[in-house]
Amino acid sequence: MTVTLAELARRFQAKVQGDEGVIIEGVASLQTAGPRDIAYVSDRKYLPQLVDTKAGAVILAEADITRYAGSALIVANPHLCFAQVADLLHPTPGFTPGVHPTAVVSPAAKVAVTAWIGPHSVVEAGAMIGEGAYIGPGCHIGAKASIGEKTRLMAHVVIGERCVIGNKCLFKPGAVIGSEGFGFAKDGERWQKVPQIGRVLIGNEVEVGANTTIDRGSLGDTVIGDGVKLDNLIQIAHNVRIGENTAMAACSGIAGSAVVGKRCTIGGQAGINGHIELADDVHITACSLVTSSITKPGVYSSSIKAEPAEKWRRNAARLYHLDEVVRRLAKLEERLQQHSEEQKN
Amino acid sequence: MTVTLAELARRFQAKVQGDEGVIIEGVASLQTAGPRDIAYVSDRKYLPQLVDTKAGAVILAEADITRYAGSALIVANPHLCFAQVADLLHPTPGFTPGVHPTAVVSPAAKVAVTAWIGPHSVVEAGAMIGEGAYIGPGCHIGAKASIGEKTRLMAHVVIGERCVIGNKCLFKPGAVIGSEGFGFAKDGERWQKVPQIGRVLIGNEVEVGANTTIDRGSLGDTVIGDGVKLDNLIQIAHNVRIGENTAMAACSGIAGSAVVGKRCTIGGQAGINGHIELADDVHITACSLVTSSITKPGVYSSSIKAEPAEKWRRNAARLYHLDEVVRRLAKLEERLQQHSEEQKN
Amino acid sequence: MTVTLAELARRFQAKVQGDEGVIIEGVASLQTAGPRDIAYVSDRKYLPQLVDTKAGAVILAEADITRYAGSALIVANPHLCFAQVADLLHPTPGFTPGVHPTAVVSPAAKVAVTAWIGPHSVVEAGAMIGEGAYIGPGCHIGAKASIGEKTRLMAHVVIGERCVIGNKCLFKPGAVIGSEGFGFAKDGERWQKVPQIGRVLIGNEVEVGANTTIDRGSLGDTVIGDGVKLDNLIQIAHNVRIGENTAMAACSGIAGSAVVGKRCTIGGQAGINGHIELADDVHITACSLVTSSITKPGVYSSSIKAEPAEKWRRNAARLYHLDEVVRRLAKLEERLQQHSEEQKN
Repeated sequence: MTVTLAELARRFQAKVQGDEGVIIEGVASLQTAGPRDIAYVSDRKYLPQLVDTKAGAVILAEADITRYAGSALIVANPHLCFAQVADLLHPTPGFTPGVHPTAVVSPAAKVAVTAWIGPHSVVEAGAMIGEGAYIGPGCHIGAKASIGEKTRLMAHVVIGERCVIGNKCLFKPGAVIGSEGFGFAKDGERWQKVPQIGRVLIGNEVEVGANTTIDRGSLGDTVIGDGVKLDNLIQIAHNVRIGENTAMAACSGIAGSAVVGKRCTIGGQAGINGHIELADDVHITACSLVTSSITKPGVYSSSIKAEPAEKWRRNAARLYHLDEVVRRLAKLEERLQQHSEEQKN
Repeated sequence: MTVTLAELARRFQAKVQGDEGVIIEGVASLQTAGPRDIAYVSDRKYLPQLVDTKAGAVILAEADITRYAGSALIVANPHLCFAQVADLLHPTPGFTPGVHPTAVVSPAAKVAVTAWIGPHSVVEAGAMIGEGAYIGPGCHIGAKASIGEKTRLMAHVVIGERCVIGNKCLFKPGAVIGSEGFGFAKDGERWQKVPQIGRVLIGNEVEVGANTTIDRGSLGDTVIGDGVKLDNLIQIAHNVRIGENTAMAACSGIAGSAVVGKRCTIGGQAGINGHIELADDVHITACSLVTSSITKPGVYSSSIKAEPAEKWRRNAARLYHLDEVVRRLAKLEERLQQHSEEQKN
Repeated sequence: MTVTLAELARRFQAKVQGDEGVIIEGVASLQTAGPRDIAYVSDRKYLPQLVDTKAGAVILAEADITRYAGSALIVANPHLCFAQVADLLHPTPGFTPGVHPTAVVSPAAKVAVTAWIGPHSVVEAGAMIGEGAYIGPGCHIGAKASIGEKTRLMAHVVIGERCVIGNKCLFKPGAVIGSEGFGFAKDGERWQKVPQIGRVLIGNEVEVGANTTIDRGSLGDTVIGDGVKLDNLIQIAHNVRIGENTAMAACSGIAGSAVVGKRCTIGGQAGINGHIELADDVHITACSLVTSSITKPGVYSSSIKAEPAEKWRRNAARLYHLDEVVRRLAKLEERLQQHSEEQKN
């Protein structure tokens, strides 16, 4: 696709600096962009790269226009504008609808005529594949599962029986939705399995990362709200509920029956214990562990940053005796207090 | 399936309160149950829900019978009883044995006539598939691997060559058993691969979660005992041994050659270092790291709970100087001691 | 394969102790080795096992020869020598080249005649499969992707479109290379997807673990250097760069645009924040979190080892008030200082 800077400005409510007629065909970074690319400053520390960029145009914040003399789009949120321009210039590739001859589709499944079922995919009885849905190679759609319109399963995705997936979702390779939750009752020394008979319900415009797993509910359902974005290798346990537009970074996990609010962000490798609730607009930093409910919006953390190991070991060694240290401190305080009082008397 | 409350009481050694003839067809939560469902109180904080439940019957502990006037099963362990009733009413669905026409089964493999090999699965030469085993779609059974009776591989499961899987196991989608372990010897700057020629041996009634990985032994085997339950996205490295009825929560990992005892529980995202041993009945809390052997049963932890980030940052900043802090404390103690002695003299 | 001890000595520059003519057919551990196996002492704590081993020969360091009277290879680095001998005696099994009839290979793909495409694999248009490459069952090679010579994809591996994979690499089952990175711009309450149009470039002799995920670059590429070894369940985000011969243990993760140097080691479950740089020869211990760039080689850590939970809870409780504790300490120091000065006056 080819657009002029003027056309981009019109579409995305931007002002133009310089030549409105510059022709743009793609997006690129400041360093790799050529004369038909548009670039942006992803972090203000990269502003000095503006001097050398060969980009045809740059997307800039009002505050930074003095830093660049070339053609530019001036917008309030350059990151957002860049994403929108990139989406326009690099759209998701289309596909020819149909069913690959190696796919195994149950005659009792309903596949929209505008959908695609890729090679070696399996669609079980009672499953519904919506208009414009793309089921990539090697996917498995369980019995009575339903895939919404324009939802894409890239490759090797598993959607368990009876799960309900919304519209315009994206599932990356290896994602497993609706496998049985981890539920057991102690029976002497052994574990008695608790049947997992709920479903997974996923809203619209949800993105699920590669090899991420979302278990079906035990009783009742696991529910992922509209606009939720999940990175790779995330674990969502049975009966979890995640509110709209919450985003979770890779390798994080949520234990059973936890409820996470709307617009939350969960950092990489962070963990949320089971049976607790996080309010809306809660942000958890990387590698933190949430062990009890959080009722107020805000940022929460138990991240500990790596230090030179020799130094860290000395500090950590003290940590294992911290309670005793604080008791020693309290004793000192008391002695000094006593001492002061003795002096007064 | 349909049973009376009396029949359930007989099967599971329960007492009946109220109407023995109530007909039960399914299990449900207190809030969603209808007149043909049986429910239970999963946590005592939900006891107030008993007032409004529309369940046909409820499973209760002796201590709670005064809280509910309706029909009930009275048992010592309501959670276990509920699991057993759910298992009775929602059994694993059966299947028609056979081999799907798209499966690729070596003529040199032995598949029991009561087993099922699903679409696009591959069974290599010398593999053995036991009576009543269920191999779901897109699985791969390596050469000379053996799958026990009534074991189920849900979808996209990989079992490496020569691995031995017991009876009545459950493998969830994407589990990878018997891939090569991570073993290298330093050769100057580069890593020389150490061939991984052992196997994975898995006992009976083992459950392996979605996208969980269990590597084959380097020399000798990786061994998972009977009744072990592994959640999703767990890493079990080469030559690990896990004792009977141990359960591990999601995203946890065990490094090479570690030995974990029987009846242990490992919390989510917890890590166990390599070449150490955990005794029987050891319990590790979520996000903890075990760096040396544990010889006594009990609960072990290095979990740190998330706090409001501003507060946490102030505390963590001190942590990086804790050794110095404790030295200052010791110095103070000394000075005060000196001072006291001076006063006495 | 069968070799004499003399032949092994010649190949790997070792000295022989005892019988040069001992015939060796395999490698094994000290405890399981028989008279045709060669073993080694993997850790000096196992030296006492030398007394009882039935191994035909043992690989020993010069320093340990007094501990063993039998036939032995004497080398500087027994671990490396063992790896080399194991590699010689247990080579990667060969295969007959060709394309399995159930594979779906685009006529517009180029597959070397010496390569193998396994059952149910898919090779898209424009993809190139190099000489001697092995594509196992159920793999997916995206459009215009390229797989180097002698590279092996074990099973169910996904290589995204346009990704470039070097020679002699090993990809374990379920690895996902080149899925779209996790990139969004905030658009009010919702997330606007940032198209991910870069690639993944992987060097030679790289090993990628089971269910590990490596995302394609957003703009520009994600780059994995020669000789890098990645364990299972690792997350490599978009635009990460990893230097040659770096090794990462399982469940670790690197966030977007981070740069890791050469010859680094990253422990299990460790995390590296985005947009930071680690110098060459940096070593991160298990479960540590790196939040800012590291410019000097060395070992870095924020690992905290699990302690008995009761004891840990008391210490951790103090940690949440550490800032206040240090303030109390400072106040005490001040008071004592004042006091001393008052005494002097």
